[in-house]
Amino acid sequence: MPETTTERVEQILSWYESDNPGTRANLRRMLMSGRLGGTGKMVILPVDQGFEHGPARSFAKNPAGYDPEYHVQLALDAGCNAYAAPLGFIEAVAHKYAGRIPFILKLNNSDSLSKLGGAPISAVTGSVKEAVRLGCSAIGYTIYPASDARNAQYEHLRALTEEAKAHGLVVVVWSYPRGAGVSKEGETAVDIAAYAAQIAAQLGAHIIKVKPPKALVELAEAKKVYDEQKIPIATLADRVRHVVQSAFNGKRIVIFSGGEAKGTDAVLEEIRGLKEGGAFGSIMGRNAFQRPKAEALKLLAEVMKIYTT
Amino acid sequence: MPETTTERVEQILSWYESDNPGTRANLRRMLMSGRLGGTGKMVILPVDQGFEHGPARSFAKNPAGYDPEYHVQLALDAGCNAYAAPLGFIEAVAHKYAGRIPFILKLNNSDSLSKLGGAPISAVTGSVKEAVRLGCSAIGYTIYPASDARNAQYEHLRALTEEAKAHGLVVVVWSYPRGAGVSKEGETAVDIAAYAAQIAAQLGAHIIKVKPPKALVELAEAKKVYDEQKIPIATLADRVRHVVQSAFNGKRIVIFSGGEAKGTDAVLEEIRGLKEGGAFGSIMGRNAFQRPKAEALKLLAEVMKIYTT
Amino acid sequence: MPETTTERVEQILSWYESDNPGTRANLRRMLMSGRLGGTGKMVILPVDQGFEHGPARSFAKNPAGYDPEYHVQLALDAGCNAYAAPLGFIEAVAHKYAGRIPFILKLNNSDSLSKLGGAPISAVTGSVKEAVRLGCSAIGYTIYPASDARNAQYEHLRALTEEAKAHGLVVVVWSYPRGAGVSKEGETAVDIAAYAAQIAAQLGAHIIKVKPPKALVELAEAKKVYDEQKIPIATLADRVRHVVQSAFNGKRIVIFSGGEAKGTDAVLEEIRGLKEGGAFGSIMGRNAFQRPKAEALKLLAEVMKIYTT
Amino acid sequence: MPETTTERVEQILSWYESDNPGTRANLRRMLMSGRLGGTGKMVILPVDQGFEHGPARSFAKNPAGYDPEYHVQLALDAGCNAYAAPLGFIEAVAHKYAGRIPFILKLNNSDSLSKLGGAPISAVTGSVKEAVRLGCSAIGYTIYPASDARNAQYEHLRALTEEAKAHGLVVVVWSYPRGAGVSKEGETAVDIAAYAAQIAAQLGAHIIKVKPPKALVELAEAKKVYDEQKIPIATLADRVRHVVQSAFNGKRIVIFSGGEAKGTDAVLEEIRGLKEGGAFGSIMGRNAFQRPKAEALKLLAEVMKIYTT
Amino acid sequence: MPETTTERVEQILSWYESDNPGTRANLRRMLMSGRLGGTGKMVILPVDQGFEHGPARSFAKNPAGYDPEYHVQLALDAGCNAYAAPLGFIEAVAHKYAGRIPFILKLNNSDSLSKLGGAPISAVTGSVKEAVRLGCSAIGYTIYPASDARNAQYEHLRALTEEAKAHGLVVVVWSYPRGAGVSKEGETAVDIAAYAAQIAAQLGAHIIKVKPPKALVELAEAKKVYDEQKIPIATLADRVRHVVQSAFNGKRIVIFSGGEAKGTDAVLEEIRGLKEGGAFGSIMGRNAFQRPKAEALKLLAEVMKIYTT
Repeated sequence: MPETTTERVEQILSWYESDNPGTRANLRRMLMSGRLGGTGKMVILPVDQGFEHGPARSFAKNPAGYDPEYHVQLALDAGCNAYAAPLGFIEAVAHKYAGRIPFILKLNNSDSLSKLGGAPISAVTGSVKEAVRLGCSAIGYTIYPASDARNAQYEHLRALTEEAKAHGLVVVVWSYPRGAGVSKEGETAVDIAAYAAQIAAQLGAHIIKVKPPKALVELAEAKKVYDEQKIPIATLADRVRHVVQSAFNGKRIVIFSGGEAKGTDAVLEEIRGLKEGGAFGSIMGRNAFQRPKAEALKLLAEVMKIYTT
Repeated sequence: MPETTTERVEQILSWYESDNPGTRANLRRMLMSGRLGGTGKMVILPVDQGFEHGPARSFAKNPAGYDPEYHVQLALDAGCNAYAAPLGFIEAVAHKYAGRIPFILKLNNSDSLSKLGGAPISAVTGSVKEAVRLGCSAIGYTIYPASDARNAQYEHLRALTEEAKAHGLVVVVWSYPRGAGVSKEGETAVDIAAYAAQIAAQLGAHIIKVKPPKALVELAEAKKVYDEQKIPIATLADRVRHVVQSAFNGKRIVIFSGGEAKGTDAVLEEIRGLKEGGAFGSIMGRNAFQRPKAEALKLLAEVMKIYTT
Repeated sequence: MPETTTERVEQILSWYESDNPGTRANLRRMLMSGRLGGTGKMVILPVDQGFEHGPARSFAKNPAGYDPEYHVQLALDAGCNAYAAPLGFIEAVAHKYAGRIPFILKLNNSDSLSKLGGAPISAVTGSVKEAVRLGCSAIGYTIYPASDARNAQYEHLRALTEEAKAHGLVVVVWSYPRGAGVSKEGETAVDIAAYAAQIAAQLGAHIIKVKPPKALVELAEAKKVYDEQKIPIATLADRVRHVVQSAFNGKRIVIFSGGEAKGTDAVLEEIRGLKEGGAFGSIMGRNAFQRPKAEALKLLAEVMKIYTT
Repeated sequence: MPETTTERVEQILSWYESDNPGTRANLRRMLMSGRLGGTGKMVILPVDQGFEHGPARSFAKNPAGYDPEYHVQLALDAGCNAYAAPLGFIEAVAHKYAGRIPFILKLNNSDSLSKLGGAPISAVTGSVKEAVRLGCSAIGYTIYPASDARNAQYEHLRALTEEAKAHGLVVVVWSYPRGAGVSKEGETAVDIAAYAAQIAAQLGAHIIKVKPPKALVELAEAKKVYDEQKIPIATLADRVRHVVQSAFNGKRIVIFSGGEAKGTDAVLEEIRGLKEGGAFGSIMGRNAFQRPKAEALKLLAEVMKIYTT
Repeated sequence: MPETTTERVEQILSWYESDNPGTRANLRRMLMSGRLGGTGKMVILPVDQGFEHGPARSFAKNPAGYDPEYHVQLALDAGCNAYAAPLGFIEAVAHKYAGRIPFILKLNNSDSLSKLGGAPISAVTGSVKEAVRLGCSAIGYTIYPASDARNAQYEHLRALTEEAKAHGLVVVVWSYPRGAGVSKEGETAVDIAAYAAQIAAQLGAHIIKVKPPKALVELAEAKKVYDEQKIPIATLADRVRHVVQSAFNGKRIVIFSGGEAKGTDAVLEEIRGLKEGGAFGSIMGRNAFQRPKAEALKLLAEVMKIYTT
């Protein structure tokens, strides 16, 4: 980590001055770590698919990934800003890697076994206390706006956020609208993505993770405003710009996920759109760890290059 | 803030003598701040629409409003008594504005994404501890009397009120009857609005916010009494007078909201009625921040003028 | 308050010797205050109708009652043993009246707006901590035996009772059978009223408030016993005697409410029956504060006279 | 209480050596008190019928029983090992009787008013803290294995047991299978009674109270084993022996209730069967306190005599 | 217990270096105790069937087993690494056996009496505090992935795990998929067993217990991957190898249960498959304690021999 913070990082940190020095130190670490350190951009490696989809679906393609150490070393070798995973994966490597790369402890997770009547609601699988014990820089939490369990999720996040900030941690929120309030198609509509970013920001998130938005407006009430005000949504860059604006006029870090594993060209094409729209970076899991390591390192290097040119 | 409190403010404060000095100091600050300081009247700027209606519907019309700093500066420039917003918006500006204008931290909020089976119940998005950390003067909380979730809401407010008072904060309650117990039309009936004010007062609110009441009596049992006792409800002033009386004979501060954005004349007409009926003031959001700043300042100045003449 | 406790009051206090000195001091205050002080009889003024029925239905008839100070002053002028009200009403006067007349803080209340599926379950609106802060002598709590929410109510009362006794407060329980387990008619049947008194006593109440019982036995299993044992229930005095016996053989203070506002003769007639049956006193709200003050004082004086002759 | 513990009592206490000295002291007190002190047998007087069935059904037959002092004095005069009752009854006499006879504070109770959809689940009416304050030796708690509320009941008992043991109290569990998992007839089947004893023992009970088992095996899976292993269940003594064996091979104290009031001969006949099967004693309520005192004393003396010959 | 830890045990312990010395000391004790001490293999005796199936079904075949001391002595005589049981059974012997053989306190249990609508959810019957008080080395907890009560179970386990680790205890998780999300047949499918192991590992378990997997893939999404990647599942050894790999590439201890009582040959045949697939050991209850002691000792010796050759 360079000794001197860059001007851009200082600017970003200036938006978080209500936070205590501990939290700002951890945010600084995340912004200054890895190959993108100091640029104000971030690429994060998240590995919670073993929990979410099961071990074989996640790791059989590249079996080195059954081992928790594989991933944190990949993140380090690729020069990622941070590594995110559930309790078990973090605990398996914390004694060796804590302090070498910032950890984000994912505090809730869902598996693919229980049906739960179709309702999206993750189980809490970690705590702020564990994040502190394991030397993490941040906690991660997923909310599902539009779900009927909204209140339980927002309220739990609220309590965790208060506790995390008091303990000098950064709060990363995965904001994924899903449930009775939106259509399947509309989950990544541009108005919904912008709203998801706004909600996470209002709930006190430092870093907000949403999905790349589609050229679609879901809600009728919103549609009127998008038409009247002629908000541009034709290109991915347009839509990303709108989502970033919706997160306190760009004063909250918004990063985007890549979703399902796909071809290298498709990945890079999307990254260019995100970059152009002003995204603060990407979080890339399956597209990285399901490739052989050399390929993964090459892809991540190209992604990072796009973000800095 | 003037050094000497006026007689009217001392009178108002005399109704709150069971509170500790900390709470009374904050109430004094709210009554002595801004252009109306010392008059016993209040105009408050609330900005929770980004959470409640989404970012584009709230801010696209006047895009400066995507930025949290815009609003607090608007409140300050207009000479409002206080600025109310959810956690994220307050936290984004607290380091710079706390102490310059009283903050009301809105502790619960609802978005327009989840359906929740139609039940009005907001998510808790802040805490007394956060209000203290961010230098706020008050907490704000919305209850929905007439809803089936009444007990959960009253009981949560009760606990927050106890905690807020112990920490020297003021308690502002938005009391909006809604749900299975009233008709849609009846939500702003005069008997319902008066009852809403009474409930908030009995629950220990210092400042009560209700909607301007209509010339309609909703409940049959109440109707008999309004007829027998010939309670005047023909004009807005009549109805406001009755609502204020229903809040401990005028010994609790009752302010009124403006509702949807509308034309300047309609806004001022309503304010005149509120003033005449003895309202302690207004809380005005969309009608202020969705106008260009110069227009908003002009409108707020006119509103304040009405309250002092 | 006289300096020397009477023999009768000492006898009553002897039934409460498992309580700590703080609680017994407050019970002594309640028994020694007002015009009935020292007689072992009590008349209490309760004013929670603003919350329960709404402001106009409660106070429009005698508009002085919109003001919280009216009621506590009425209780003081009439020589009542105590004044009972919800948080807001108590807090509005505590700084001025605490220590001049014992307060009972009503800790749960229900309004007439929410339907709650018809289930009788009040919202908690106060706490032991607040009762202590406001200088109260007692807490008040309403249970609805026969309701499906029985467990939640008894368990909450249990916790409050433990906390109140540890803080030197007296516990007053309103025991009103209502709900799926009794017919509407049976709510005030003599077996039900006796059972309601027994339950409150077993739950640790110091003072028990029930409704005057009717000459009706509700439960078949009980009916057999009333017939076999020839328990007299023909007159109000008979029934009151049975209810008082059912509260630990008269070793718990049992007082009776008057219910709806009614004519003076009807009120006094009922009081005579209560007195003859050994009631420890009455709690009288609407029949007092909805009359003009002079009339109310006259009525209360007559009631007190009956209890002492 | 004799100064020297007998060998039999020392043997019984040796099964409870994981408990702290406080708990073992209280268990020793219960085993050494009264006429059976030192024999390893117990007869306990429980009086919770006022709560469970109502006052008239419980006490009208012998009206002295309306008075809480009657029962504790009866237990003392009869030479019972302990007296069990809910909070109100214990509190009414604790200041005078604590230390003279061991108290068991019944921590949960059910009344006959609420229907609760037919589900057996008692309300919590006392606490370990109250048991300590009132000088009790033990807490009592009823579980209903086979009910759908099993988890709530076992988990609450678990927490109370942990707390009671930490405070030096003895834990007495009433284990009454009832609910969706057993037929009405099967509630006292021998396999069910044995299972009920095993569950209470595994949950950490010191003293287990079950109902006398019938010559019936309820569960098909169990029936096979009873047949194969030829477990004798023909006589009451056989069945009691099996139940006692099922409670850790006789290393937990198992006592039996008598149920409904019945004739003296029937009572004594049953006691002989219990004694022969190795029961540690009886808990006898209505059969004692609903008889005139002299008769009750005579009956209890005969019961005790059977247990010691 | 040998004084010097073997190299294999040191290797295993190296995977748990994020744990505190207390927890690692207890894990070391479990790995170094008994006949398999130092080999890195474990055989554990669990006795919770008295609670789960009832006393007669569990112990009538070998009635010595009614006595809690029988089992712990059997585990000690057989040279097991640990003894697992619910609170009652552990408490009955802790004063005598704690420190002689590691205890695993089973913290949740289910009986066969309640139906609970068919939902698999155990009652909590013990606590970390009790485990510490009774000198245990570990806590045990059962989760049912695929059940609708998943969140409650994972979240409770999470809290217990955090508490156990802070108190220097080892966490053993029984991971048994069951409920609405899997078919009855699929509960032991190889993909489900592998997923169950992964979930337990991600939740922070030190030792994971699953059932021997069958040659069946339950989930369609998983099936594609098993086919594509040609994951071998033909033999028990293949499947066990996959399950062990799914638990952090073999860096978490995975042991297997034997299920229902069966013939000696069948038991040993299965153990050979487990051994060959790299299982860390077995947990064997009914197959041990329902045999006469001499036979049980012989069987356990043979099992242990297989694991070490």
